[in-house]
Amino acid sequence: MNDDNGIFLRNCWYVAAWDHELLHGAKLARTILEKPVVLFRGESGRYIALDNRCCHRGAPLSMGRVEGDCIRCMYHGMKYDASGVCVQIPGQSRIPESLRVTSYPVQERGHLVWIWLGDPARADPALIVDYPPLHDPAWRGVPAYLHYDANWLLIVDNLSDFAHLAFVHTNTLGGSEEYAYTTKPTAIERLENGFRVERWHRDSLPPPYHRKVIPPGEYETNVDRRNIATMLVPGIFLMETMFAPAGSGAENGNLQGVRQYRNSQYMTPETRRTTHFFWNYLHNVDIDNPDIAISLRDSLIEGFMEDKAIIESQQVLLDNDPGFKLRALEADVALTHFRVTLRKRIREENEAGSVTHFAGQAV
Amino acid sequence: MNDDNGIFLRNCWYVAAWDHELLHGAKLARTILEKPVVLFRGESGRYIALDNRCCHRGAPLSMGRVEGDCIRCMYHGMKYDASGVCVQIPGQSRIPESLRVTSYPVQERGHLVWIWLGDPARADPALIVDYPPLHDPAWRGVPAYLHYDANWLLIVDNLSDFAHLAFVHTNTLGGSEEYAYTTKPTAIERLENGFRVERWHRDSLPPPYHRKVIPPGEYETNVDRRNIATMLVPGIFLMETMFAPAGSGAENGNLQGVRQYRNSQYMTPETRRTTHFFWNYLHNVDIDNPDIAISLRDSLIEGFMEDKAIIESQQVLLDNDPGFKLRALEADVALTHFRVTLRKRIREENEAGSVTHFAGQAV
Amino acid sequence: MNDDNGIFLRNCWYVAAWDHELLHGAKLARTILEKPVVLFRGESGRYIALDNRCCHRGAPLSMGRVEGDCIRCMYHGMKYDASGVCVQIPGQSRIPESLRVTSYPVQERGHLVWIWLGDPARADPALIVDYPPLHDPAWRGVPAYLHYDANWLLIVDNLSDFAHLAFVHTNTLGGSEEYAYTTKPTAIERLENGFRVERWHRDSLPPPYHRKVIPPGEYETNVDRRNIATMLVPGIFLMETMFAPAGSGAENGNLQGVRQYRNSQYMTPETRRTTHFFWNYLHNVDIDNPDIAISLRDSLIEGFMEDKAIIESQQVLLDNDPGFKLRALEADVALTHFRVTLRKRIREENEAGSVTHFAGQAV
Repeated sequence: MNDDNGIFLRNCWYVAAWDHELLHGAKLARTILEKPVVLFRGESGRYIALDNRCCHRGAPLSMGRVEGDCIRCMYHGMKYDASGVCVQIPGQSRIPESLRVTSYPVQERGHLVWIWLGDPARADPALIVDYPPLHDPAWRGVPAYLHYDANWLLIVDNLSDFAHLAFVHTNTLGGSEEYAYTTKPTAIERLENGFRVERWHRDSLPPPYHRKVIPPGEYETNVDRRNIATMLVPGIFLMETMFAPAGSGAENGNLQGVRQYRNSQYMTPETRRTTHFFWNYLHNVDIDNPDIAISLRDSLIEGFMEDKAIIESQQVLLDNDPGFKLRALEADVALTHFRVTLRKRIREENEAGSVTHFAGQAV
Repeated sequence: MNDDNGIFLRNCWYVAAWDHELLHGAKLARTILEKPVVLFRGESGRYIALDNRCCHRGAPLSMGRVEGDCIRCMYHGMKYDASGVCVQIPGQSRIPESLRVTSYPVQERGHLVWIWLGDPARADPALIVDYPPLHDPAWRGVPAYLHYDANWLLIVDNLSDFAHLAFVHTNTLGGSEEYAYTTKPTAIERLENGFRVERWHRDSLPPPYHRKVIPPGEYETNVDRRNIATMLVPGIFLMETMFAPAGSGAENGNLQGVRQYRNSQYMTPETRRTTHFFWNYLHNVDIDNPDIAISLRDSLIEGFMEDKAIIESQQVLLDNDPGFKLRALEADVALTHFRVTLRKRIREENEAGSVTHFAGQAV
Repeated sequence: MNDDNGIFLRNCWYVAAWDHELLHGAKLARTILEKPVVLFRGESGRYIALDNRCCHRGAPLSMGRVEGDCIRCMYHGMKYDASGVCVQIPGQSRIPESLRVTSYPVQERGHLVWIWLGDPARADPALIVDYPPLHDPAWRGVPAYLHYDANWLLIVDNLSDFAHLAFVHTNTLGGSEEYAYTTKPTAIERLENGFRVERWHRDSLPPPYHRKVIPPGEYETNVDRRNIATMLVPGIFLMETMFAPAGSGAENGNLQGVRQYRNSQYMTPETRRTTHFFWNYLHNVDIDNPDIAISLRDSLIEGFMEDKAIIESQQVLLDNDPGFKLRALEADVALTHFRVTLRKRIREENEAGSVTHFAGQAV
């Protein structure tokens, strides 16, 4: 598993967890980019990520005990501080410097715990992609997680072309097959680091997931629907969604009667064939009524399960025939740009050559 | 999985399904010779088999929707006709010729759906091994299926030497261990394409599965039992079974008091270590009484489960030690001839060299 | 699985089973050093171990039938004697000499069935490590078995440093974390064939497992605890445990008020990543009261399950990153000596070169 052959980009921040996963002293064992990591909050409140293998016999530190900002391996009692240095060995007075585990830079931002698995010297917190709605009190949502038995790029692909809404999500997030025939992206921007796509669907009924949270009086009122989606390396998806009364001129700035959502999704490779998928779908109406956020969370799970069935089938088929060549359609402009961009970044990183040295090794 | 190194014979018809598996619009995802295939009937009634991977992103067409004699991928809506050509892409007007999936020749014969995975130009329906009792109104049986976690040749081996009836099936299909000691094939014919074996077992009690469907008055009446078995490449087994009152001279053509069965079995490789096993065990007495056919079907399942336990154990042992060498006994003349014949056919096919080109690739 | 590259030592005795596993005609299929073996007692009472693959088609002999001191394959009826020679083939009069399976030397000692998978000419029963308490009527215990999804050496490691008692088994076999800080081996002897370690823990409360079998009046009485552990190639662990009233001078031979245990544990590789683990924990007080032996057996299972959770996690982490380097602490003197000793023995055996020839092949 460890010879990743430049499959992953390492010098960037990945979402490792939601902050609520580390409440109450939890020691979270999570594999990220094929590295076993233990995540926890020290008693000072600090977030800490270490290689999840005691350097002595490889026992998982996630079975250990947090003591202050340290963690003690509960096999033979070795204690490591937040930097991964061994600070105590029961029954041994001298501690060689080589006894340490890798410590990974971690940052909390927008209730997300971000990790950096590349060269720690380059782990600039300013590089974290902050998504303001996640910490803006005007927006409310339920943070959620799914595990995929599929390479993360198959999920990125999925989110890169919203035509799939029409067929995969007709009765959940989409609303009609017409969407695939009559709408197209109105703009596709190639970013240095991903892409930005804007897509309008005019004068159609509200899709099922939206109907579940609007007043019954609006059920049959046609809407103009606009999605603005941004996808960023290594697999960060941000989307603004707007539903305006059909023909009300929202495209010209008339926001009367408009309903909006904010939504971010994070694809973090667990391994080359499995993915951690984090998301939050946020609304800004009646935010203290939990039913809305829960309904949206449940609708998204329903929709993502539809994706998951297809995407995990793709993975099985690709596993069984690695030589199978995928073919691009016109609608794959964004997808293709993203894959090219990411591949270029990975290649540059590997040519620079200093990455492997830092990742997952006790230095 | 896809570098099959000449493991399979490709230029021949294989049983892909029973026709009842494709009733009511079913889209059957079935792996055959390590190729993922989707099988369905178009609305015209036509049988269709396509590569079960949309050429766009590899999504399974078996999760798609049949429209006329076409199937639509329900990921982004691409529609393929029965020849595998893409005929519609929602949101895209021009369809490049390269957008297609492999279409495999299919034929129904005797309620069996046959598929050809080799060079389609050579898929002559006349090459299908028809078994008349399967469509002769005088014969009745219940078509059945089992899945084996074993290479198909281990099942062929099993059927090549009926001495195993004595030990594996003593209390089901066999009847006595004596069978292995006192009977032998009276004739073994080496066919260009397999073998034919005739075997008599004289003056013994009716075996358990037969007793279950004969009148109680015959339970204790000894019979002369004759099996004529034919095995054909790639794994087709046809058998006539006769029970005559012991000593009545059935070998000289006296059919008075004789009871007969017809039986065909089909081993289709799913992968090199798993097999689709189809069969029907037919009788010609009181055929509108379903109890007889059901009793025979159940007896055969009982017997095949005895085989399956041994055969799947063989597979595990061979997997764990690929160097383990099997040794032939005198009784393995037919088995050995079949393996040699098949190997020769595969070698010739691979030397001809044109096969791989056609199998499983969008041309 | 079969190219073991000198992973295992072959020319030595391994525990294959407890004798009670072969009661009542049981035919035990057990993989040992990646060889499939069938173990059974012939009708004469003799212990027999054969390659668990009929030499004809590789069917498992463990699905066969014991006849006298022979076993008959229940696929086509071939019968093998205790030396592995085929002595009958139904329907075939001549039996070629090559038709045989490997027979492995077996010995019963102390209710353990020992097997030798190396050169049979060197299978000297005198080399079996006898543990007298297993057959001494003064000692009583319940023989037990666990299966580990881990390489056997990870279990050997575990038993090589009792500091783990403090952290893994605090509330079961250990008693306090103090054990790891205040005690050390008082002697570590490097044996030609393993090691011997003596360790004292003075003036502490009886550990939980011991409290469960002593009179309530002793619950709060501090004890001096002494363990003398011996580990022998290939993975045999023998231990004497003594609890003396604290300060009573047991170290000088005063055995008044002393309570003792005897304990042997056997790690037999099933494969390179799974292990058969046999043990018995014996006591010598009130031995006809089954509650004591059962309580000790249950306590040991409880403790071993704590080990198992860690050890199987180690295995997973090592599987995922075979390049991960373990680092020794001062406490690993015994462990390191054992690994070096075993590696040397395996290397010598492989240089001698005659082993593979004998193991697992019908000669």
